[in-house]
Amino acid sequence: MQPNTLSHPFSERQERLRALLEVRKLPLLVVSNPLNIFYLTGFRGSAGVAVFSEAGAVLWVDPRYTLQAYDQAQGVDVLEEKGVLLKAAGRWLGRKRFKLAGYDDGYLTCAVYRQLREWAPRNLRLKPAGGLVEELRCVKDASEIECIRQAGSLTASVFEDLRQQIRPGVRESDLAAEVEYRMRRGGADGAAFETIVASGPRAAWPHARASSKLLKKSELVIFDLGAILRGYAADMTRTIYLGAPSQRVRSLYNAVLEAHRWALEAALAGETTGNVDAAARRVLRHRWLEKFFTHSTGHGVGLEIHEKPRLARGERFRLQAGCVVTVEPGVYLQGLGGIRIEDTVLVGAGEPEILTPATKDDWFIV
Amino acid sequence: MQPNTLSHPFSERQERLRALLEVRKLPLLVVSNPLNIFYLTGFRGSAGVAVFSEAGAVLWVDPRYTLQAYDQAQGVDVLEEKGVLLKAAGRWLGRKRFKLAGYDDGYLTCAVYRQLREWAPRNLRLKPAGGLVEELRCVKDASEIECIRQAGSLTASVFEDLRQQIRPGVRESDLAAEVEYRMRRGGADGAAFETIVASGPRAAWPHARASSKLLKKSELVIFDLGAILRGYAADMTRTIYLGAPSQRVRSLYNAVLEAHRWALEAALAGETTGNVDAAARRVLRHRWLEKFFTHSTGHGVGLEIHEKPRLARGERFRLQAGCVVTVEPGVYLQGLGGIRIEDTVLVGAGEPEILTPATKDDWFIV
Repeated sequence: MQPNTLSHPFSERQERLRALLEVRKLPLLVVSNPLNIFYLTGFRGSAGVAVFSEAGAVLWVDPRYTLQAYDQAQGVDVLEEKGVLLKAAGRWLGRKRFKLAGYDDGYLTCAVYRQLREWAPRNLRLKPAGGLVEELRCVKDASEIECIRQAGSLTASVFEDLRQQIRPGVRESDLAAEVEYRMRRGGADGAAFETIVASGPRAAWPHARASSKLLKKSELVIFDLGAILRGYAADMTRTIYLGAPSQRVRSLYNAVLEAHRWALEAALAGETTGNVDAAARRVLRHRWLEKFFTHSTGHGVGLEIHEKPRLARGERFRLQAGCVVTVEPGVYLQGLGGIRIEDTVLVGAGEPEILTPATKDDWFIV
Repeated sequence: MQPNTLSHPFSERQERLRALLEVRKLPLLVVSNPLNIFYLTGFRGSAGVAVFSEAGAVLWVDPRYTLQAYDQAQGVDVLEEKGVLLKAAGRWLGRKRFKLAGYDDGYLTCAVYRQLREWAPRNLRLKPAGGLVEELRCVKDASEIECIRQAGSLTASVFEDLRQQIRPGVRESDLAAEVEYRMRRGGADGAAFETIVASGPRAAWPHARASSKLLKKSELVIFDLGAILRGYAADMTRTIYLGAPSQRVRSLYNAVLEAHRWALEAALAGETTGNVDAAARRVLRHRWLEKFFTHSTGHGVGLEIHEKPRLARGERFRLQAGCVVTVEPGVYLQGLGGIRIEDTVLVGAGEPEILTPATKDDWFIV
């Protein structure tokens, strides 16, 4: 295994992992989350078990994936295993006489852990080491940022193109279908999550699905959408009002938009994610709307639509250049509906870059 | 809590769970898999913790989901919890003075289990009880079968409609986009999984994604697709050859089709799933093709695209009327590509009912 023969960026990611393992005094890490295996090796199957140690890395896959793993996986020895993958890994650990192994306690279920414990040698200590790869994934490298930028740009342009179809009488689920079709045709792997189109009172459910309900005049409509492109997601929400908004709806929209902008301004390298959340919450508190803001301000985005860090009350994670997070304050009022405004943003040296650049000012359709 | 005031089918499912808990001598079960909570209560959020006991049931949700849970959840007391849901559940268990609780060790991660252990009272014994709800879910009730039948019928008709677009020069990912768009427009929640369109040598990867590759003449193309409709999935694969197939390709296709049909005939109530797998495998063995059949014959389908039971070598699960499973033998030859033929079928009193009724005989496009 010659790390310098690996193609960038997997060599760098594996090196970062090895450095982190050294800090944590772990000789090796057992990885079974397919997203983490993809991140570290480029193998994009739905199942696999990998072991990363100082000496090198091994990836076990079942026969469905052998050819694909030979083709995709970098920086690991690929081994085909017809039986249970963790059993093969456990036995291998025994043969190599390791004394200590980290495992991902945030991913392994209790039942699977028991299997690993059973098959690993008795004198091997298994230490919970969840979230190590997720920690690396918090800071995106250039190739990841490029994927998310493309996903975000596609998401925004799909929404801009959709606007002319947003009118009373259209079915929520038909708009969701349009969104996902346009993403695919635009080069996405698909939608990063089930597109939300929630109109009228349904918009008061922050995570409503698109239903067979028809859009009506004088309703708020929340669109929450995101493309996934070469494995990387973007996440964006826009709220549209059908008709001329009343004074009350206007002031609610402007309050959420202001909260969104203050949070954006706070999303700087060196700032804690708790402070970004506080910036949004403060604006809404001053307008007596805080109690209607029933979720946190945002989350990391990348290989998963929700990943580390959380932008929530009291969180102490410090943003760094390369973090990609959402900023998405919202208010939800039973009966009236909801308003949420969300962008995916890249934290950098100065102001964050908005990766989902659809308009937020042109929000009602008369 | 008056079980008889619940609307069918949730009352019946909760009663089946209580009966199963009694058999297992468990006074209660902690459920946190959102699909299982949906199955038991009708609440379709992405997060929640529920406790089902003889006396009744409680569901904790975070504030994002309060309104939705009030609206959807049946047969449970809904409690809003601003903090960690499992903490609220743990404290509740302490107040109720339970001595023993089952938890889903097949779903809870080691890290989350440690939290539950920490917050539950010290004298409460936590017993691994994974897969209990999944066991109930193996046998579908009438309302579930109706959803899967609709999903299957839609999946088949989407594919039949797509056939006229399948020709050399078309991009795999564009066909996948068409599939998913037509599912949505046909009333699906979306695609149950990322549609596979894999042509030429790529078809030798059983789980290849749709790529930007163009279809070419004289290639095999595998289409693996499934709609999800009101939460329930269908799963279907068809293989198409572009051009007039050679003798070799014909004999491969017919071998897989024969394996598929023998497995279908074996999928009867009372039969073990291992025997269904063996029926497919036997056909391929007699043609010296068994080593190219690199996966199992099928799996249960329902709220998840892959669920219990497995139709694989040596499995002893006995099929019952109401089981919905896939039958999907395939062969994969590096260089040439692959052939897979899959239906979702309902096990009943007599022959299984094919829920994905697209043609398998009309498989080449000249």
